[in-house]
Amino acid sequence: MTENELTQKVLSLLKERRLSELRGLLSEMNSADIAAMLEDVPENALPILFRLLPKELAADTFVDMDGDQQELLILSFSDTELKDVVDRMFLDDTVDIIEEMPANVVKRIIKHSTPEMRKMINEVLNYPKDCAGSIMTIEYISLRKNMTVSEAFDRIRATGVDKETIYTCYVTGSDRRLLGLVTVKDLLLAESSALIEDIMETNLIYVGTLEDKEIVAQKFDKYGFLAMPVVDNEGRLVGIVTVDDAMDVIQEEATEDIEMMAAITPTDKPYMKTGVFETWKKRIPWLLLLMISATFTGKIIQHYEAALGTYVVLTMFIPMLMDTGGNAGGQSSVTVIRGLSLREIEYRDVLRVLGKEVLVALLCGVTLAAAGLLKMLFVDRVALNVALIVCATLILTVIFAKGVGCTLPILAKRIGFDPAVMASPFITTIVDAISLMVYFNIATHILSI
Amino acid sequence: MTENELTQKVLSLLKERRLSELRGLLSEMNSADIAAMLEDVPENALPILFRLLPKELAADTFVDMDGDQQELLILSFSDTELKDVVDRMFLDDTVDIIEEMPANVVKRIIKHSTPEMRKMINEVLNYPKDCAGSIMTIEYISLRKNMTVSEAFDRIRATGVDKETIYTCYVTGSDRRLLGLVTVKDLLLAESSALIEDIMETNLIYVGTLEDKEIVAQKFDKYGFLAMPVVDNEGRLVGIVTVDDAMDVIQEEATEDIEMMAAITPTDKPYMKTGVFETWKKRIPWLLLLMISATFTGKIIQHYEAALGTYVVLTMFIPMLMDTGGNAGGQSSVTVIRGLSLREIEYRDVLRVLGKEVLVALLCGVTLAAAGLLKMLFVDRVALNVALIVCATLILTVIFAKGVGCTLPILAKRIGFDPAVMASPFITTIVDAISLMVYFNIATHILSI
Repeated sequence: MTENELTQKVLSLLKERRLSELRGLLSEMNSADIAAMLEDVPENALPILFRLLPKELAADTFVDMDGDQQELLILSFSDTELKDVVDRMFLDDTVDIIEEMPANVVKRIIKHSTPEMRKMINEVLNYPKDCAGSIMTIEYISLRKNMTVSEAFDRIRATGVDKETIYTCYVTGSDRRLLGLVTVKDLLLAESSALIEDIMETNLIYVGTLEDKEIVAQKFDKYGFLAMPVVDNEGRLVGIVTVDDAMDVIQEEATEDIEMMAAITPTDKPYMKTGVFETWKKRIPWLLLLMISATFTGKIIQHYEAALGTYVVLTMFIPMLMDTGGNAGGQSSVTVIRGLSLREIEYRDVLRVLGKEVLVALLCGVTLAAAGLLKMLFVDRVALNVALIVCATLILTVIFAKGVGCTLPILAKRIGFDPAVMASPFITTIVDAISLMVYFNIATHILSI
Repeated sequence: MTENELTQKVLSLLKERRLSELRGLLSEMNSADIAAMLEDVPENALPILFRLLPKELAADTFVDMDGDQQELLILSFSDTELKDVVDRMFLDDTVDIIEEMPANVVKRIIKHSTPEMRKMINEVLNYPKDCAGSIMTIEYISLRKNMTVSEAFDRIRATGVDKETIYTCYVTGSDRRLLGLVTVKDLLLAESSALIEDIMETNLIYVGTLEDKEIVAQKFDKYGFLAMPVVDNEGRLVGIVTVDDAMDVIQEEATEDIEMMAAITPTDKPYMKTGVFETWKKRIPWLLLLMISATFTGKIIQHYEAALGTYVVLTMFIPMLMDTGGNAGGQSSVTVIRGLSLREIEYRDVLRVLGKEVLVALLCGVTLAAAGLLKMLFVDRVALNVALIVCATLILTVIFAKGVGCTLPILAKRIGFDPAVMASPFITTIVDAISLMVYFNIATHILSI
């Protein structure tokens, strides 16, 4: 059954009031699929369908839904219903939802949380956006080093239901300082009388509360963990980040880089949910900035107006030279930006990168010039001297473009800017001006105008 | 200690032959960190350092190293050493390594695998690259539905050491058909006498062996699982994909999209490991293609040579119009391409997307035209009629660019192409030609040339 057929089936069962059949169908589904389906049903059907779900599934589905729909539902919830959902959510999901909701909805959620939950929510909300503290959960399993394996299992059985992950357990001292970790795999493979301190891993990889969430995600990618402890500056365990959140961060960061590269202010709202005016606001500052920067290029043309008046044929190759420079520079900058994001390229590599790019540029420039020469002579049938001017400009432009394209992102990162800004649009603007200057300089010399 | 300081310390301990101290230091490290460190040591130090590692850590480190270094090591291994490492690796890691190694190295690895391992390697190697079968592991825990919870634990204890994940166990029938799954959490929270069939989850999310690995990664992202079963067309369980592999796929796919968007043929080799010639090969076909396409734009200029000869001032705005069109179109195409990758945008949304983009384009175009008008009149001091021609072209170009930019990727995907090809470079080439046609048409009418 496709998603669409499923939605139709659900709606027709609802229309015919075959509710127990409908409840059966929904109970068999995964929460993420129900959430996707609920996006396509009419607003008034949403609360009825949601109420048909078993409570645990309802809470999971609620977490998987998007902000607008969560808001609609909360507004339709009775106090008991709201409490049911809030009680069943994990802390990090609750915080995510709170961050997206308008103030009045947040008030209602907070009102129906237990005092303990309220304290934890506030703790996580206090960390700045984009840091490890803001994506962690405080619900983890902590053990003591003098417990035995079987005592550890008792503790997991007693408290595990409410924890987001039970598979990595953290061993803390009386001062909450992180001493080690044991996985459930270690526990299962150990003797039940063994002491935790004898089997725990003490060589720990952890992150600080204020560490950038991008770094956290990269550590997950590097080490392949299922969870990572978050500690404060005194080395006390304050929470954990789980792998599913790390995966979300990886997706978000890639989207952010891609948007920046295309000269768009990044947003974490999905495209289809962003309004026209909001989309305009994310794009227009960059377009304006780049348009104003292009003035430079215009000025160069203006300066050589006389030459262009005499040799109008020179104008014909301006778009090709500009585009090729932009494309060649864009290739290098985008490659380097991605390399920086994945930590494959570091600042110390700048000269190696530049050397390689210049060699690649030389190869590319010569290939393009050779192809261009043949085309200009035999297809466009321009004079040989004009063709040679274009070819020389091509080679120099490509070398310059790739050189600038690969160095600017590395330098930007070095001085603390996001390298993704230095992608094709900016490189294009710079390369345009330079390529035209080279072009006209060569042309005026060779053609003696 | 920074990575660099650590490398220095390791090398100086090695030089002074303080080997037991060195072994102690290395044993405390994580395999991913050792692998990163080994990249920076001289080639001849590599085998000695590797031999100092405890066997389990050595195998993990080997998996975390990059291809060149693995090859170096394998060549220096004795047969026993190779067997030690190969025996300890998980199947999916072995397959990854085999896929990267030259034939003679592969032969040696295969020779030192157990016959059973060899059979499994061949099985996975037979799946086409990029499909679920090629990234799965065959080492999972399978249970029978008539086992009790305590029997299940016995089985996990007996076979768990060699399995990549033990936290999700799969319940299969005698025909290997997948019947359900239980997590270790479920097992821990259940009575030890409970039957697996009574506690197993039967509403399963799985993937087919030939499903695109990108789809597999998206399912992980959607459902937040730690592992996902892979079944053949008869519904028999053949393997599992684990979350760490899914995370790798997400990173690779994002890199691939980004490279395609910048007109580069994607590669899975890191930038610093790719040679100059190889880099050239990935870039030059696109540069050539785009250069040839720019001919079109040149032809349009050639066609209006007479007009440009009379009004050379018109030439001055060509770069700005071309760049703005390219940037505006690039913003839309890149946004839509990413939306398609994340499944936020589907084919059925094409008209909604187009409608929205045209509205955004109208807003952007008018803003740019207004700013441009002021600048042209008061900064560039061009005639009002020329300024108005430029402004009208700006608005039309931006609308056209965003319209084309958002539709082409969706259409490309519809007919089975990778939408990422339809990013800024291609859009720019198309928009260049159109914007110049609009420009000259308006100009020749208004200026009557």
